[in-house]
Amino acid sequence: MRLNLSRIREATDLISPEFQNSPQFESESLSEFLGCQLSLKVETLNPIRSFKGRGTDLAVAAAITEGFATVICASAGNLGQALAYSARRNHICAEIVASRNANKEKLERIRQLGGRLTLVDGDIEDARSTASELATNNGWYLIEDSEHIATCEGAATIGLEIASSNFEPEIVLISLGGGAMATGVGFVLKQVLPSTKVICVQPSGAPAMTLSYRRREVVNTETISTIADGVAGRCPIPEVLDDLLQVADEALLVEESSIIAGMNALHTHAGLVAEPSAALGIAVILENPTLFDQKKVLSIVCGGNVDRSQFLGWISDK
Amino acid sequence: MRLNLSRIREATDLISPEFQNSPQFESESLSEFLGCQLSLKVETLNPIRSFKGRGTDLAVAAAITEGFATVICASAGNLGQALAYSARRNHICAEIVASRNANKEKLERIRQLGGRLTLVDGDIEDARSTASELATNNGWYLIEDSEHIATCEGAATIGLEIASSNFEPEIVLISLGGGAMATGVGFVLKQVLPSTKVICVQPSGAPAMTLSYRRREVVNTETISTIADGVAGRCPIPEVLDDLLQVADEALLVEESSIIAGMNALHTHAGLVAEPSAALGIAVILENPTLFDQKKVLSIVCGGNVDRSQFLGWISDK
Repeated sequence: MRLNLSRIREATDLISPEFQNSPQFESESLSEFLGCQLSLKVETLNPIRSFKGRGTDLAVAAAITEGFATVICASAGNLGQALAYSARRNHICAEIVASRNANKEKLERIRQLGGRLTLVDGDIEDARSTASELATNNGWYLIEDSEHIATCEGAATIGLEIASSNFEPEIVLISLGGGAMATGVGFVLKQVLPSTKVICVQPSGAPAMTLSYRRREVVNTETISTIADGVAGRCPIPEVLDDLLQVADEALLVEESSIIAGMNALHTHAGLVAEPSAALGIAVILENPTLFDQKKVLSIVCGGNVDRSQFLGWISDK
Repeated sequence: MRLNLSRIREATDLISPEFQNSPQFESESLSEFLGCQLSLKVETLNPIRSFKGRGTDLAVAAAITEGFATVICASAGNLGQALAYSARRNHICAEIVASRNANKEKLERIRQLGGRLTLVDGDIEDARSTASELATNNGWYLIEDSEHIATCEGAATIGLEIASSNFEPEIVLISLGGGAMATGVGFVLKQVLPSTKVICVQPSGAPAMTLSYRRREVVNTETISTIADGVAGRCPIPEVLDDLLQVADEALLVEESSIIAGMNALHTHAGLVAEPSAALGIAVILENPTLFDQKKVLSIVCGGNVDRSQFLGWISDK
């Protein structure tokens, strides 16, 4: 296991206060709608509207300690915003590599935050290759999401906050993409609240990590077909899978229609603008009501960066 | 002045943690859109989706100390939800009097929280009269919004949090209805951040307190015509006006179209579902850009209880 509880506790000193102690509350309206006792941990109310600033603050601190003046990452949009934000505050440069097909509003926000964008053909996996090459060729500090331990440790601080709240969940639902949040939060929960079940949720249209978890070995997939861009990858990282196998109790897949219904429920019942990747927890409850019936459940609403018109389409009555 | 800083500091011990330390963050996207440096203090991420729980926790504690088993208030919906919530947790009864024309979703939430509803003809002022009569006739503990000092002291704790943040605002924008939030927060700011300008904002369609502030004496109005139900009153309370005159630097009115544009801006740029009363601060910036140009401004987003279909109408592209 690459994670360590005392390192995670120490990490809280290096993360900007605006990313920490995010709101957590029970939504009775959503609980009634879903048939369980639901608490939400909300990571969308900060300057970059996602949890990723926790990890990039740590990664940038590490880069500076090692003497680097430029950091680089591949991103679907949220990690890039976070890295641009953390780098700008620390007066170093952030290079972000993204797919030409990435969410336009996320790309625009990266630019506004001072990140230098390189756009590539293909998907997030192509962006990862290019970022790695650029890092090697230019001597830049590479932050590979989920592989760089800072991204996992940053996310793990969410787990510390959940564990210190008054709400002791029977089940915690964590969106699963590359695995930084699932392994980070899952690790802390297994250490501090060992009886809490850790369930990871991924879209059926981007199931690589879930398939890998179930087969206990890396399974790459060919295509990505989901609106949940924040968790959409095809090539899981072996070390992250190893960690995930130790902390996750289950990995479940959800359909696109459930993700949209999840965003709708969060908007209507809790007044939240959640991006698709942040609604996976609600989606899995909607698809498996008996699994969660009357249980104490916590779902992490991990990001709220959406394209305005697309979002209005998802939440409108059709 | 009815308010006292040490009492407000002590109040934080009596208010449930879920209502305190609400998120505050700078939204760069909204700042760029509005042309000022804007920080948002967000009071919508808690079980009742408004700031009113801070005050009702205090009022219910006072009622219990005095031996009452039933509390009563008139409400447009948010105070009623808060009182039902605080009363339920303390195992006492909450009676809520509301206008038959009040927001349906707010009334439904009051019922779900265990509040007993009495609906009356007319508007909030008629509900106030009925609540007062019922309290007298039944020996119940009356919580008159803005008049009962707990409602002001509870709101005032928002001011303590603003003052302890890293963001030192030149201007704080506070929605103005009966005046509990404006006097409470304004008082703390004048004590702790004396150079910060306190600007109150009210809808042109419900301007009674603003007209009273300007004329330095109570002005009652005949009708209410605004979507901002949470701040809509006609008959200001003299003691509250006295306090307001001591802490507010200005009171401004905004048009309905600006309130809608404000809700839209909060939704698009900050991912927030704000109710009309919570968008008054953004509305006043939209109407008076030169007044706020490049200034450090903080706006309190004080509630997010909206009717789903009405809200979708407000935020949709027309």
